[in-house]
Formats: sequence, C-alpha cells, structure tokens
Amino acid sequence: MPNLIYGPQPCFLERVIACLLEKEIEFEVVDVDLFKGEHKSPQFLKLQPFGSVPVIQDGDYTLYESRAIIRYYAEKYRSKGTELLGKTIEERGLIEQWLDVEAHNFQPPLYDLVIQVLFGPKLGMTPDQKRIDENEKKLAQVLDVYEERLSKSKYLAGDSFSLADLSHLPFGQYLVTSLGKEYMIKDRKNVSRWWDDISSRPCWKKVVQDYPAPV
Amino acid sequence: MPNLIYGPQPCFLERVIACLLEKEIEFEVVDVDLFKGEHKSPQFLKLQPFGSVPVIQDGDYTLYESRAIIRYYAEKYRSKGTELLGKTIEERGLIEQWLDVEAHNFQPPLYDLVIQVLFGPKLGMTPDQKRIDENEKKLAQVLDVYEERLSKSKYLAGDSFSLADLSHLPFGQYLVTSLGKEYMIKDRKNVSRWWDDISSRPCWKKVVQDYPAPV
Repeated sequence: MPNLIYGPQPCFLERVIACLLEKEIEFEVVDVDLFKGEHKSPQFLKLQPFGSVPVIQDGDYTLYESRAIIRYYAEKYRSKGTELLGKTIEERGLIEQWLDVEAHNFQPPLYDLVIQVLFGPKLGMTPDQKRIDENEKKLAQVLDVYEERLSKSKYLAGDSFSLADLSHLPFGQYLVTSLGKEYMIKDRKNVSRWWDDISSRPCWKKVVQDYPAPV
Repeated sequence: MPNLIYGPQPCFLERVIACLLEKEIEFEVVDVDLFKGEHKSPQFLKLQPFGSVPVIQDGDYTLYESRAIIRYYAEKYRSKGTELLGKTIEERGLIEQWLDVEAHNFQPPLYDLVIQVLFGPKLGMTPDQKRIDENEKKLAQVLDVYEERLSKSKYLAGDSFSLADLSHLPFGQYLVTSLGKEYMIKDRKNVSRWWDDISSRPCWKKVVQDYPAPV
C-alpha cells in the first residue's frame, strides 16, 4: 500500500509532497473536503485530534504536523533520492535551525498575508491594510537577514539543498505569484538567486503543476 | 571550553538548560542584558542575526532557535545521560510531531498569556481581557487533546520521556505558578499525572531553583 497523504491544505500539503517527490517515494493523496467540514468529523479526528491536515499514513503508522512528516520521510529514506538532512550532526543542526526560522519568522507574516489578501476577501472579510503593511514590514526584515546569510552560503543551511530550503517553497510560491509581491524576492540579489534555484527544481515544478493554488 | 549559552530569555533559555542537564553536558551561561539592548548590538547580531536569545557556541559552532539547539545536543550526546530522541525512526517521528504541536499549539496561547498577564503590566500595558479569555479557551482545547492522548500513552510521544515532553516544561511552569492557572492542569487527570511526572524530574527542579522566573 502506498503512503497515504490526507489533504488538501494549501501550502502544508505541498510541503509534504515536495519532500516525497525529492525522496522518490510513492504516495496517494486522500482528499479531505474542508468546506464540508470533513477534517472535523469523528473519523478524521481519530487520525488528527486537532482537526488539521496534512496527516500521513505509512502502513499503520500515522503522523501529522507537516515539518515532522518531512523529517520522518527524509530520515526513513535517507539513502533514496535527494539527501535532505545533511551529512553530519552539525549540518543537521543548521538545517533544524533554518527549519525553525522558517516556521517562526518566515511563515507567520506570509500566512497572515495569504489570509488577509487572498482567502479573507473570498469569505467576505475586509482586508486590514494596517495588518497587511505590518506583515510586509516584518517579512522584509526577515528577508534582509536571509540576504546576508545567502551572500555567504549557497543554501540556507550550507552548500546543499535541504529540508530547510524545501520548507520555504509553498509560502514562497504564494509570495511571488498570487500575492503579487515578487519584488520582495527580486530586490534582494542573493535571495533572488536562491529562490530561482530552489523553485526551478523539477520536483517543485511538478508540485506547482499538479497542485495549483486555489486562489 | 564548555558550551556557551547566551541568555537570558525566560522559557527559551530554560528549555536548553533542561536539555543540557538531562544530557549531563557542561555549560556556562553568558549573560545578555536585554534591558540594555545587548541582543541588538552589532557584536551579538553576528551570532544571532534576528537579535534573539538563546544562542549556543560549542567550540566554533554557533546555533540558535531553542528547539534546534535541544535537538542538536540530544543527537550529539546520544549515548550520554537521558535518551531524548527515541530508539527508532518511528519514535523520533512522534517526538518531532509533539515538538511541533508544542511549538504551534501549546506555546502560542501561553506565550500571549505570559505577555498579557505578567510582562505587559510591568511595562505599563493594560491587559486585554478579551485576548486573555480567548487564549485560555484555545489552551483548554489543546489540553483536552493532550488529556485524550495521555490517557493512552505515559508520555506524549510514547512510553519514555523525550524532547517533546521536556519542551513543554518552561511555559508549563508559568501556567502552574506565576499565571495562577494550575487548575487547567489539575482538572485533567492524565495531563495532571504527566505534569507531576515531568516537572518533578531532578533536572527540571534544578532549572527552577537556579533560574527563577523574573515575574
């Protein structure tokens, strides 16, 4: 039986699929209809008690939280496909550091921008311009740190593409497409070079083609 | 030279120290005076470009983000002190899942409560009661999931104490002491049993004694 990936959840599901493709692992996406509230059904809550997607099932092993899932697959299939966890404990340490930076510094302002600018208006919410401006400012400060880091390092955690870079792809994609803020990447020489590199990987191009953003 | 841990940062520093004590690793805390803005000095920003603590230096290796740091030490000193990362890839997967649940579900409402109730008033801010109530409600829902999980499992990720449990200690400590909300733990039988277990570990008792909360 292939690995089952319960979705959709824009961005979080794509993070997992990008990893599975890089590791050349077979999988099947099980559609969860969020608009029908299937993620809050008793059956689904047995898999994921917080009622969130994605969740994976690898045989009888169930796991949730997108970054925990990508760590699991990258570790389980260490010798298959792209090496994503580094070669040494020190390299892994830096990958973990930049995965946490992505989770706590990069994603939060971008997530809020996606809600305010893209999903909110579809649900009848009026965008809060002050909040949008604050989030763009926060994100700009984060990208300034990335610019400095990427002036000295090819990828975030070192010389090789890793889970840390991969984890930025889904929300980075929103930034340069639907949000119309590609300039935030392009205005920073090294961030731009890095983004062009990671977003042109065949696996990511396949994710973008096969799982287009809903807005 | 011992491992250097730059602090203080209530909670985040304690997470790292609890791990170092469990792993029986020597360390020295380097005081960073946040009130004097030392974390924003050019010298400190070379170590941690976002201007946050804690940061560690292990020889010439520098690492930040508290959960990345504890993963690094738990991996580097795998055979020393308490095993904190599980014995199999599947166990590690669940530890990572609950570490991420702690980071994304448990800590955020508690962090906001600590700011609103404890630190804000000291800095002249008026607590926002609506926000306090919302955060307590969110935290209660998270603890209900924990109660169910801990009715079937001794610790969050399985039969053994791990990084996932350890990571809850600093903010859990605020909840039962300074925030005066011990009932949120005590009212849930299995959460209460789990909290009593993990918070009575000698290493954590030493952290509480040696690094008392500032508020």
